[in-house]
Amino acid sequence: MSDQFFSRRNIDFLLYEVLEALSLTQHEYFSAHDRDTFSMVLDAATDIATQIARPAYVEADRKQPELVDGQVNVHPAIPAFYKMFSESGLLSAVFPNEWNGTQLPKMIAAALESIIGAANNPFVMYPDLTKGAANLILKFGTEAQKQAFLPPMLGGAWTGTMCLTETQAGSSLSDVMTMAHPQADGSYKITGQKIFISAGDQDFSENIIHLVLARIDGAPKGTKGISLFIVPKKRLENDELVSNDVESIGIYHKMGQKATPAMHLAFGNNNNCTGYLLGVANRGLPQMFLMMNGARLGVGIAGIHIGSAAYHASLQYAKERPQGRRLNEKGNLGEQTTIIHHPDVRRMLLTQKAIVEGGLSFILQCCKYLDLEKVAKDPETQKSYNDLLELLTPVAKTYGAEMGCVAVNQGIQVLGGYGYTEDFELEQLARDVRIMPLYEGTTGVQAQALLGRQVVGNQGRSLMAWYNEVAKDVWDAQDIEPLKPYWQQQMDAMRQFQKVTNHLFILAKEGNMEVFLADANLYMEAFGILNVGWQWLKQGLTAHKALHHGTDLGDDKIFYISKMQTMKFFFHYEMPKLQGLSTRLMDKTQLTMFDAKQEILL
Amino acid sequence: MSDQFFSRRNIDFLLYEVLEALSLTQHEYFSAHDRDTFSMVLDAATDIATQIARPAYVEADRKQPELVDGQVNVHPAIPAFYKMFSESGLLSAVFPNEWNGTQLPKMIAAALESIIGAANNPFVMYPDLTKGAANLILKFGTEAQKQAFLPPMLGGAWTGTMCLTETQAGSSLSDVMTMAHPQADGSYKITGQKIFISAGDQDFSENIIHLVLARIDGAPKGTKGISLFIVPKKRLENDELVSNDVESIGIYHKMGQKATPAMHLAFGNNNNCTGYLLGVANRGLPQMFLMMNGARLGVGIAGIHIGSAAYHASLQYAKERPQGRRLNEKGNLGEQTTIIHHPDVRRMLLTQKAIVEGGLSFILQCCKYLDLEKVAKDPETQKSYNDLLELLTPVAKTYGAEMGCVAVNQGIQVLGGYGYTEDFELEQLARDVRIMPLYEGTTGVQAQALLGRQVVGNQGRSLMAWYNEVAKDVWDAQDIEPLKPYWQQQMDAMRQFQKVTNHLFILAKEGNMEVFLADANLYMEAFGILNVGWQWLKQGLTAHKALHHGTDLGDDKIFYISKMQTMKFFFHYEMPKLQGLSTRLMDKTQLTMFDAKQEILL
Repeated sequence: MSDQFFSRRNIDFLLYEVLEALSLTQHEYFSAHDRDTFSMVLDAATDIATQIARPAYVEADRKQPELVDGQVNVHPAIPAFYKMFSESGLLSAVFPNEWNGTQLPKMIAAALESIIGAANNPFVMYPDLTKGAANLILKFGTEAQKQAFLPPMLGGAWTGTMCLTETQAGSSLSDVMTMAHPQADGSYKITGQKIFISAGDQDFSENIIHLVLARIDGAPKGTKGISLFIVPKKRLENDELVSNDVESIGIYHKMGQKATPAMHLAFGNNNNCTGYLLGVANRGLPQMFLMMNGARLGVGIAGIHIGSAAYHASLQYAKERPQGRRLNEKGNLGEQTTIIHHPDVRRMLLTQKAIVEGGLSFILQCCKYLDLEKVAKDPETQKSYNDLLELLTPVAKTYGAEMGCVAVNQGIQVLGGYGYTEDFELEQLARDVRIMPLYEGTTGVQAQALLGRQVVGNQGRSLMAWYNEVAKDVWDAQDIEPLKPYWQQQMDAMRQFQKVTNHLFILAKEGNMEVFLADANLYMEAFGILNVGWQWLKQGLTAHKALHHGTDLGDDKIFYISKMQTMKFFFHYEMPKLQGLSTRLMDKTQLTMFDAKQEILL
Repeated sequence: MSDQFFSRRNIDFLLYEVLEALSLTQHEYFSAHDRDTFSMVLDAATDIATQIARPAYVEADRKQPELVDGQVNVHPAIPAFYKMFSESGLLSAVFPNEWNGTQLPKMIAAALESIIGAANNPFVMYPDLTKGAANLILKFGTEAQKQAFLPPMLGGAWTGTMCLTETQAGSSLSDVMTMAHPQADGSYKITGQKIFISAGDQDFSENIIHLVLARIDGAPKGTKGISLFIVPKKRLENDELVSNDVESIGIYHKMGQKATPAMHLAFGNNNNCTGYLLGVANRGLPQMFLMMNGARLGVGIAGIHIGSAAYHASLQYAKERPQGRRLNEKGNLGEQTTIIHHPDVRRMLLTQKAIVEGGLSFILQCCKYLDLEKVAKDPETQKSYNDLLELLTPVAKTYGAEMGCVAVNQGIQVLGGYGYTEDFELEQLARDVRIMPLYEGTTGVQAQALLGRQVVGNQGRSLMAWYNEVAKDVWDAQDIEPLKPYWQQQMDAMRQFQKVTNHLFILAKEGNMEVFLADANLYMEAFGILNVGWQWLKQGLTAHKALHHGTDLGDDKIFYISKMQTMKFFFHYEMPKLQGLSTRLMDKTQLTMFDAKQEILL
């Protein structure tokens, strides 16, 4: 395990210098915060990461939970971690004061999560899911529901999950079949099964609160007949927690993230499972999507923080590992050089750095929009942030997930054969990160949501708002000599992307949705690169200003020079990929459109 | 496990229709063969794959070998497999008649390996390594050595390994430290340790013949002081096999390919390990490279056959799995469609198909050059094949390895969450395939060999020969209407590649090797695409001719149409990646060149 797994200096740079997190504290809701309170939170996260999450990372993978006699036993470090996490106030931090929270901005919550997640990514799933479930109850619950569930959930005694997927439905939520039968007392009897429920069972919390998508008897078909229910593992009867007929009937063994069990749950096998409608009947899906949006950003962060662990581990290895001689020293048979002196190794390290620091910047940017949406005074402002978030959330999820895999993959290559063995953490990081392009909607599903719903669905308005936001954000760069070529490159790429989008608009108007959405994945890939280009330009701007206006920079000088270097790397190595993507996206040849009978061609 | 894991029709198409394997039988050495003998071999491979390799694929992974009391116990299916493989004649097939072989062309041997490897990739390591070691003994051994080692090795009683890597050296073979001390009887005492020795120990063969790189006392420093030794696990003394002081001191636990143990071996811990010089003293490295070339093609095939298993498994899933509705049927709440009807799923399947069938074609092409080199009548012809092979071997290795990973990755996405669980083989295929970019020289090492040694090192002569070969090979395509645009695209891409190469030549002449080789990896990626573009054009030509000149094609009609479709897919989806690669390769900005003190920038 490497000594370092994240860079606090980088997180501080992104939060305070690039994205101006402190500006949030001018808003009433966040006004109790300042840099000190943010720092305390990040320090607490670092302590938890270092003291308990990271030491247990490997062992909790090797001793994965099993389902024995209906019971799931997780690794003992998990309850210890969960206790420390909730007792330090991190679990409830983003919630309102009245619910024992501190109204911490999402930006800071994401940053703290990136620290702990870099140390031990499966562990952060537990508090993450609890926060997501609690957030839904806070948003849509009755006062009684809030009083019943939020204090034990945010206090750390109860955990939460989200139960969407069913065997026959997968990503097609309109085919959810779990049923809810109304009871005289206003509650419902739930019957059905859910699969792939992360942290769906464990043995350490007093109770588990499942948020379950189900259909009320007689509800309309499709997505418009789905409701959201609170279904506790144990329900309260006469002040006692009794079994609520939620059964663990299977556990999935996965490639990675083994410390977090993925459960197959049966609700109401004995017709004794009570659920409580949350929010409005038949509005379950849009309500759940609120949680899903947070969860999608969480998956993006996970890809990035696993990438961060890979970057730091392979960087340390490259600095310590002697092998070969420098290419310019032909015939030198003296001492070997450390491999960081090989340009190809540096390229692999810079690739990881560009992904991890650019990706984190992008996701924190999205979190800032979440925070600004929350405190927006007028509906119009709020809507403008919401539009941006709807547009960017699938992109942030996908960039983090897909490029996190790329980063870890490069990390393994730096280590050579050692990277493939269990002796180094890269092997585990690679197994863990691979789930990110699948969680909370695969990359394919995200791409169709982006192009279908968010770009074309609203006539390109969100995309236009995004253009304006980016153009404004990096405006200053055009007048700064070392940044100007990169500003130009970004603007040209955005213009080309607009052409691609127009081309797809025309296809969409022709009405053949399959043709129009056939290459949505490539559109997503291109848009991700553009967004991270934007963020790198912002980072470059900040670093340039600091280098030229700062005095007594000390160690920071190297830090800022490194930022300039990595920004350039991104523009010279990652941005050119847009060329091929654009060519394909503008290409009218339809090669995935052969009709149903031609399946046989595959 | 999917029903199908390879396509015999595709193998036959590549061997007989595209690459004209039967033309080899016109040469004396291969003259005992015809299509029937080839078919018998491929049928035998299919039987072994189906009856013994595939059924054991999962279990041999879950019950990985352990080192207990110095002894490694492998899964019992492995000896059974090895026995069937050798008894069916496949182990010795490529060897000369006098050594109990059948002088089978390498092309056919590669094809049979791709069948068994698609069923169970770690199993093929055992015969592969034995064949490689035996081949070196055949090539460089004395008559006595051949008599002593070849019969038991090729008969299946003894296995072989190659022992290159040492802890402190890794890919830097000039730093090998294992020593060989000359003895009065002409043998040597070997002392030293080797790591990552695949199949380096097991409990089923009577003996294991290690081919070991070591330095004879007083040998020159660097690569010119390395010799090759035969070091058996047990040596013959008074007609009995006694321990030769080769000790298993560690076993690596790996992400995948678990059925094949990677060993840490100690030679001569008790100063009682005898080795026999193979070939010429201090010429060990070039001799070993002969085996390495075969091994590198083997790794490329492995990437491809694992990709083949992934393709067939995800194809079957896509045909059987209902989920969602067709995009053009908005509002349809009726039955779900199978996911093969989603264009994005087809894109992922076609990506795999294009990689697997294009990659296999490319590697079989290289094998054909090996066969032609073997039977060449004059040294000039022989050298021309050798030049092509030296140029293309690192590319075939890398394309198979890297793109095999891409294919499996796409396969997982087709399955969604299920792809990440142990319930489907994709999860294991992903863990297995990940070693390919590391085996036998990482992608970085291959890329430097390609650009440094094979392109620039010989003044571009090999590359020019390759250009001529390709141009001649696809010449006919320019006059065939449906192929012409792809021929044009290939020729344009080759011209652009020549420009990139010229640019790099200039950098090389300036003498800064680090600058010139900094982006060798991207050069490799581009060259791989070009080579597979060549192979797809050849396949397209063959399919087009068959469709237009064949009569009564029956089921073959669909097969040939599918070939045309996949060829087009490759040109429309894969070839455009060359644009971004070319841009970066022509870019003079040096971003990985910061000097030693600037390590701190990372």
